[in-house]
Amino acid sequence: MSNPVLVEVLRGALVESRHRGAVAVVDADGATVLSLGDVAQPVYPRSAVKPIQALPLLESGAADKYGFGDREIALACASHGGEPAHVEVASRMLGRAGLDSGALECGAHWPSHQPSSQALARSTGAPSALHNNCSGKHSGFLCVACAAGVDHRGYVNAEHAVQREVRAALESLTGVGLSADKCGIDGCSIPTYAVSLTALGHAFAKFGTGKELASERAKAAARIRAACAAEPYYVAGTGRFGTEIMKLFGARVLAKTGAEGVYCGALPEQGLGIALKCDDGATRASEVAMAATVARFLPMSDDEHAAMGRFLQPTLRNWNGIEVGGLRAGEALSQ
Amino acid sequence: MSNPVLVEVLRGALVESRHRGAVAVVDADGATVLSLGDVAQPVYPRSAVKPIQALPLLESGAADKYGFGDREIALACASHGGEPAHVEVASRMLGRAGLDSGALECGAHWPSHQPSSQALARSTGAPSALHNNCSGKHSGFLCVACAAGVDHRGYVNAEHAVQREVRAALESLTGVGLSADKCGIDGCSIPTYAVSLTALGHAFAKFGTGKELASERAKAAARIRAACAAEPYYVAGTGRFGTEIMKLFGARVLAKTGAEGVYCGALPEQGLGIALKCDDGATRASEVAMAATVARFLPMSDDEHAAMGRFLQPTLRNWNGIEVGGLRAGEALSQ
Repeated sequence: MSNPVLVEVLRGALVESRHRGAVAVVDADGATVLSLGDVAQPVYPRSAVKPIQALPLLESGAADKYGFGDREIALACASHGGEPAHVEVASRMLGRAGLDSGALECGAHWPSHQPSSQALARSTGAPSALHNNCSGKHSGFLCVACAAGVDHRGYVNAEHAVQREVRAALESLTGVGLSADKCGIDGCSIPTYAVSLTALGHAFAKFGTGKELASERAKAAARIRAACAAEPYYVAGTGRFGTEIMKLFGARVLAKTGAEGVYCGALPEQGLGIALKCDDGATRASEVAMAATVARFLPMSDDEHAAMGRFLQPTLRNWNGIEVGGLRAGEALSQ
Repeated sequence: MSNPVLVEVLRGALVESRHRGAVAVVDADGATVLSLGDVAQPVYPRSAVKPIQALPLLESGAADKYGFGDREIALACASHGGEPAHVEVASRMLGRAGLDSGALECGAHWPSHQPSSQALARSTGAPSALHNNCSGKHSGFLCVACAAGVDHRGYVNAEHAVQREVRAALESLTGVGLSADKCGIDGCSIPTYAVSLTALGHAFAKFGTGKELASERAKAAARIRAACAAEPYYVAGTGRFGTEIMKLFGARVLAKTGAEGVYCGALPEQGLGIALKCDDGATRASEVAMAATVARFLPMSDDEHAAMGRFLQPTLRNWNGIEVGGLRAGEALSQ
């Protein structure tokens, strides 16, 4: 059995490409309200669970100890574009813990934000670990270690105190034991544990509502949600879908991308969590699928619906700016 | 019915992502020797048919008139990386016809070859149409127009004399009438006509062997194949799969990528043409699928097989250089 087509790519009058995948929308009690495709198969959530991975930063008191505001907390949840403002906040987070970029163990890559990448090429000529899209999360991890007086070296390893805390938060929210046989190494070298989309959707419903969470954890989740809603630019970056949808809907939508076609999020007012993955790992498809899922469950004004048009049916233009096609949700998802 | 999984992406012990698609391998008589998935559905071949689109450049006498050698002919078939050597040859082709980059109607984009893109950002700060991956093909089109004394303006439009010639070559080789209802606009603004993978495979078998072609056309195809085999760097660029596989096998393999997950090519000694498309449009998958298809039909030495390993089972490394997974052909293709 194959998963349904979530997103179609059109060129001229024909469908040129097709993205299959699975979508789970779940409430905080664990009841599934939408299930498309195989939502029981374990998938690596990758960066889509960064908001959950940020819980120890709040719960440990590290964020308060180092005086973090919305920007720092949002960046701890980010897959950012490596823009100068992102780099500045990551650097500031490290500074508060008495560290610098040398402590980051995420590796370096060029900013995904093209103008920032080109500006960097023109100036220093090489990226640092601060430009890594995960540098905010890693700065948060380092702050957790430093606030607890734990040696931060090796903080990316599964058995380091920081990753044990992070894993415990994921296990608690997903309700799934995370074991080494379902573990991969993420792009930034931390463990990523495969869990079902149903469990991820359930986790985000709890994260988005605070229901089924201890009061300290519910408070931490609420603060993370508020930070992302207030500073969505620090969760992704200029022009990015995740940033734009959170700018549009504020605290009504939490949306976080993960590599290899994953998107997770929550609709707190509806009490729902969302988890989806495009089988082939395509980001362009996961964004349209997330937009379509949000549009299906979130009541919105006509103006908001109009503003969602460019995410629900993005236009494809060629190098001369000519409209050559577009993307749209497949039948299964658009119903 | 969905197409089979052509390529799997692994992380840790799990398959993280899956790429479905279809593959046709056909001989010059039109007999199908391998058919995976729906090979009858029309697909846009995009840049994968550039070697066929280059036929009028040879057949019209324009290539001889302007004194083109292997590099110019290879570049006319290229989706190049915008490296300085690519730009130089495109510029030279235009100069021979008394034109410059202002005549190109392909649009501008940053070089896909990252070091070239960064060097360009450091120097002039903006790409020109010469950096467009299609600039060699477009320079060839302009040379066809100029050699024939035809006004070159609008040469990208379907009804311009150049595109009529190009379409006629495609119709002749595929054996399919190319009509406006199956036509999309390509990234570089020329028409792209959807045809079945079977027809594309047949076209490449004829192109790769000269069989079923008039002698002038067979001669032109042989010269194009020889140019690509002699100068594969000018067909793609540094480190690219298409370049590397043609460097490895010389005239025994013609391989050309197209956008949205297409790969076409020929095994001249086996008399076979290959056409494949990954449903989701992923280049990473089309490359592994092409490598697996070549490995299935091309006799090769142990050394050659060993050298193919990095294309058949590419390793995925993260930003710290740690091996985190890899790609491999799916069961349907690896049998």
